[in-house]
Amino acid sequence: MIKAGIIGAGGYAGVNLLSLLIRHPEAKVVWLVSEEAHKGKKISELYPHLKGINDLSCQTLNELDGLIKDIDVVFLALPHGIAINYVPKILKAGKKVIDLGADYRFSKEAVFGLPEIYKEKIKGARLIANPGCYPTASILGMAPLVKNGLIDVSSINLDAKSGVSGAGRGVSLKVQFCERNEGVTAYAVNNHRHMGEIEYQLGRILGSQMNVTFVPHLMPMNRGILVTGYSKLRDTHNALRITDLIKLYKDFYKDAAFVRIYETGEPCTKNVSGTNFCDIGLSINEATGTVIVMSAIDNLIKGAAGQAVQNMNLVFGNPEKMGLEGISIFP
Amino acid sequence: MIKAGIIGAGGYAGVNLLSLLIRHPEAKVVWLVSEEAHKGKKISELYPHLKGINDLSCQTLNELDGLIKDIDVVFLALPHGIAINYVPKILKAGKKVIDLGADYRFSKEAVFGLPEIYKEKIKGARLIANPGCYPTASILGMAPLVKNGLIDVSSINLDAKSGVSGAGRGVSLKVQFCERNEGVTAYAVNNHRHMGEIEYQLGRILGSQMNVTFVPHLMPMNRGILVTGYSKLRDTHNALRITDLIKLYKDFYKDAAFVRIYETGEPCTKNVSGTNFCDIGLSINEATGTVIVMSAIDNLIKGAAGQAVQNMNLVFGNPEKMGLEGISIFP
Amino acid sequence: MIKAGIIGAGGYAGVNLLSLLIRHPEAKVVWLVSEEAHKGKKISELYPHLKGINDLSCQTLNELDGLIKDIDVVFLALPHGIAINYVPKILKAGKKVIDLGADYRFSKEAVFGLPEIYKEKIKGARLIANPGCYPTASILGMAPLVKNGLIDVSSINLDAKSGVSGAGRGVSLKVQFCERNEGVTAYAVNNHRHMGEIEYQLGRILGSQMNVTFVPHLMPMNRGILVTGYSKLRDTHNALRITDLIKLYKDFYKDAAFVRIYETGEPCTKNVSGTNFCDIGLSINEATGTVIVMSAIDNLIKGAAGQAVQNMNLVFGNPEKMGLEGISIFP
Amino acid sequence: MIKAGIIGAGGYAGVNLLSLLIRHPEAKVVWLVSEEAHKGKKISELYPHLKGINDLSCQTLNELDGLIKDIDVVFLALPHGIAINYVPKILKAGKKVIDLGADYRFSKEAVFGLPEIYKEKIKGARLIANPGCYPTASILGMAPLVKNGLIDVSSINLDAKSGVSGAGRGVSLKVQFCERNEGVTAYAVNNHRHMGEIEYQLGRILGSQMNVTFVPHLMPMNRGILVTGYSKLRDTHNALRITDLIKLYKDFYKDAAFVRIYETGEPCTKNVSGTNFCDIGLSINEATGTVIVMSAIDNLIKGAAGQAVQNMNLVFGNPEKMGLEGISIFP
Repeated sequence: MIKAGIIGAGGYAGVNLLSLLIRHPEAKVVWLVSEEAHKGKKISELYPHLKGINDLSCQTLNELDGLIKDIDVVFLALPHGIAINYVPKILKAGKKVIDLGADYRFSKEAVFGLPEIYKEKIKGARLIANPGCYPTASILGMAPLVKNGLIDVSSINLDAKSGVSGAGRGVSLKVQFCERNEGVTAYAVNNHRHMGEIEYQLGRILGSQMNVTFVPHLMPMNRGILVTGYSKLRDTHNALRITDLIKLYKDFYKDAAFVRIYETGEPCTKNVSGTNFCDIGLSINEATGTVIVMSAIDNLIKGAAGQAVQNMNLVFGNPEKMGLEGISIFP
Repeated sequence: MIKAGIIGAGGYAGVNLLSLLIRHPEAKVVWLVSEEAHKGKKISELYPHLKGINDLSCQTLNELDGLIKDIDVVFLALPHGIAINYVPKILKAGKKVIDLGADYRFSKEAVFGLPEIYKEKIKGARLIANPGCYPTASILGMAPLVKNGLIDVSSINLDAKSGVSGAGRGVSLKVQFCERNEGVTAYAVNNHRHMGEIEYQLGRILGSQMNVTFVPHLMPMNRGILVTGYSKLRDTHNALRITDLIKLYKDFYKDAAFVRIYETGEPCTKNVSGTNFCDIGLSINEATGTVIVMSAIDNLIKGAAGQAVQNMNLVFGNPEKMGLEGISIFP
Repeated sequence: MIKAGIIGAGGYAGVNLLSLLIRHPEAKVVWLVSEEAHKGKKISELYPHLKGINDLSCQTLNELDGLIKDIDVVFLALPHGIAINYVPKILKAGKKVIDLGADYRFSKEAVFGLPEIYKEKIKGARLIANPGCYPTASILGMAPLVKNGLIDVSSINLDAKSGVSGAGRGVSLKVQFCERNEGVTAYAVNNHRHMGEIEYQLGRILGSQMNVTFVPHLMPMNRGILVTGYSKLRDTHNALRITDLIKLYKDFYKDAAFVRIYETGEPCTKNVSGTNFCDIGLSINEATGTVIVMSAIDNLIKGAAGQAVQNMNLVFGNPEKMGLEGISIFP
Repeated sequence: MIKAGIIGAGGYAGVNLLSLLIRHPEAKVVWLVSEEAHKGKKISELYPHLKGINDLSCQTLNELDGLIKDIDVVFLALPHGIAINYVPKILKAGKKVIDLGADYRFSKEAVFGLPEIYKEKIKGARLIANPGCYPTASILGMAPLVKNGLIDVSSINLDAKSGVSGAGRGVSLKVQFCERNEGVTAYAVNNHRHMGEIEYQLGRILGSQMNVTFVPHLMPMNRGILVTGYSKLRDTHNALRITDLIKLYKDFYKDAAFVRIYETGEPCTKNVSGTNFCDIGLSINEATGTVIVMSAIDNLIKGAAGQAVQNMNLVFGNPEKMGLEGISIFP
């Protein structure tokens, strides 16, 4: 049984992680840390849906030294720039770290926790940088094209559409119900932190530095990301057929437990909601020589907590899908 | 391993039942029947979220004779008036029947499948009439008051608020996105089929016939029912204290695996979404001598598929909660 | 041309009032006051939908002395307890005041601004206490029954369902998109400020003190209130027929410009969205002797800004419907 | 006073047109035609929000000969391929025609009713082909770039996001509440009818044939379209500055009554909801040399009924904004 602690349990990613681990057959959450304001409160007070399911109380980072001793792995789900102050201490104590934040995603010290690309490196790693939600959907969508040299990488436009939970549980005008309901808008155009993460990681797959255009949008829904990726085929003379493209994606992801390639129809955020799946659909516009890749994930599961559990499974030698077999409740 | 067949698998209740049974450790769905139009189609074509998870194809009722042989229990999730044509044949073949429709809810032949009230009768029963969604929330909310003679039963007003999935997957103008979004309305005022079911079942608990006022409303959300029940206390001279009332409810449901009584705060449909819980909150208006009971369920789980699985567990001697331990994905 | 100032223009009620007055043929908004934080900001920065339509900048209450001189009427849309500090000064300067807040709703100094009941008193009044949103829908729904002595007033249960905008634009966890979407819940059970306002105003209509049970609920939508009112008929021997009841309501509101009585169908919040209408539907449960009244309004129009304009029209002798003839944009 | 008839009044575009014309100071709707199924029904039965506002009854196309005589202009809001059977007869009778459908959008006989581009041609025209909703947002967004030769037109990717009302009021599974709520998906990828319309009309502006990549998506909201357009700058050596780009757009639309260019912030569908505005925001990704244009409209107003009224105003010599000055009700 893997004993786990969660730092940042009061946020949406943290509480989803807790829920997954509660039902994981080989893991047990031993303690929770949440910000000072929640000190001593039961997680079920912050999240009444956990009433009768989990009664852990929130502790603070001040108590970290004592807490570390009890566990095998620490998950951190914190805003940018905080994890880096605590991770060295946890690693030094010989514990595994899975960081759901951005602090180690550009670091050579950590393994980038995208199992569809780096599964072997993840096995046994001691520090995992869990990918961001937008990067997960974007990279899984574009990797087969980039890796196989099929597209002009300077032509990539990633139009990303996210549910509001991606902004976290912190209060702000922008995420209030009345401001978002019936309101679709782009935000952080050309300056979202995840753009650099996507460029860096696709560049590693390509083997050289590259840039993309990335525009995130807020949708009036709770969960889910759909990234629609546009890019120009390099060889427009030997037109790539859609059936070949689908085959190429299926081959690329033949060992991926959670990637589903569509032969017909388009991915929909509902189809992956609450699950660790990444659903991918493909289309080619022959007149413009453009490949369209649509990739859908649940931003809090495959884009955060689920992927973290998937990484934990790999790190500790469990079956990759353990504890992640939930089926989307539809509708 | 319990072998099950589902008739009416193409509806929302049916597909939720399928999802629960796929992950149930002691059950296996052997076949699916859906309406003629779906003949031969895979369930994952009707519901792409099941892609890669279940590949059963839909059969039709014409094939029922052959299908019955293979299974231990048949679930029926059909519109009113159809099940009654097929249930006798299935029972005659010695199979158990759990009917999610209304056909047997007033019948002495069937056990009313509300385990919080009729657990012992359900164990070993051969025909279960699974309660309606509104009746489940309404009866669980009012039963402790009715049973203990605390209220004037002629004063019960049940104001019910439902997500749109309660109307099923059949197409109609009323359930179109644009007609329901931003649109809260009552419907079927004083003539909803479930009103009679509530009156009949509360009457059984009371020990004599009784009537209620029941007004269902449509909410712009997918899942969930909240019933706010109002009734007058009988003895207003010896004022019932809220703490006593909470204690009374806790006692009444002390053996109920899925009922959670709130000591503070109000139940919210989100807190039970995707789960088999019924969350109950209580309040007393002393000036008017009125008890207010708020009961929340997921209409497709505790109000349909989950309760059917709970009944199956009881019928076949499994632990009541088996396969029903999913945690609401929040938010 | 009536010259108006708005204090509290940065809130949802304030900005709806501004929008109505911009298009009002006989009114002109001369200045806006919003809280210190918005000082000097254009209202179109706070609300980009006003870009190119109105470019007034927000001033603060510190400048009130100078501002008062320019105008004929001041509208206040402020949180509880603030207006009372400024209204005396405005009245003393000989200006009319229409207060959208709660400070004067129990005061004998002010006229309660519900024109369907107090039209004659409103004409020429100098201080109008604009009713709350829940009280508007509740009182319009119940007044004909109370006034005509048809019901046992101790039996009134008001189940109110509101869109999220009723909570205003202030940030808080409770009104965040992800917390409300798919989440129906009661709140402030038995202790909402509007309960007292309803009791006080219905008591005035009745001619003696009375109490009601009032439970507000939050719905996952932006705008609209639906109040479902339940009450027992007094004379159950001479059963009131629904056709008689409808006629009674039509008579009661025969001079009401904005009340629509339904002969068939149920009111829906969508049908009044963006308008000053109050739509009322009726039903009788003969078995329990209960009258059900459903009343729907737009909480920000008939429940706030629209009713304030209606009152302004009456105070200044304009036609009651002037500037209030907008049609709901459907869907 | 312009006397108008509306064919297809039972659809969402038709009823929005009716609402705008009811409040238009110089127009009067004389008759409505809706499909056979609505024959004789009042429009307020189909749309109860019009109760007490308009009591016209629906007639059928069988009666068209008689109906034509009474009016000055006929609006048609019909599915593809029907208008073409009736328009010649109406024109022959000397009446003006504004067709909201697709039948004449590629025809030389009609003027393409996009006033921001073809205002002079529209004045006095007898047959107007009102643009589609996606083309309106797409063309207004891209026209300044295409016209000024700033971009490589072969690189245009148009990612369009639409509210569900764009699909009309016809019942289908795809537009049911539960199927769309929490469900973001692309559809009709590379084969939406509007793609050809955009290519044809942008090609006219360019002066030669061109192709675009166009992917429409369904959003869980009622109204609004946001098109995010991506295209490569031609001259990346002389980098275009964002301030220059904004100035260029402002100049291009200096005579456009309904186009608002954002200097800061991003357009949001809420800001144009219920109005005839097209809000445009701009950004440049310097690393990839990509211009990002975001254009937002209300699909049923600027994308259909409002633009039709704008065209009517121009055809009959009224001020362009007459009857179109409604302010978005926010939130």
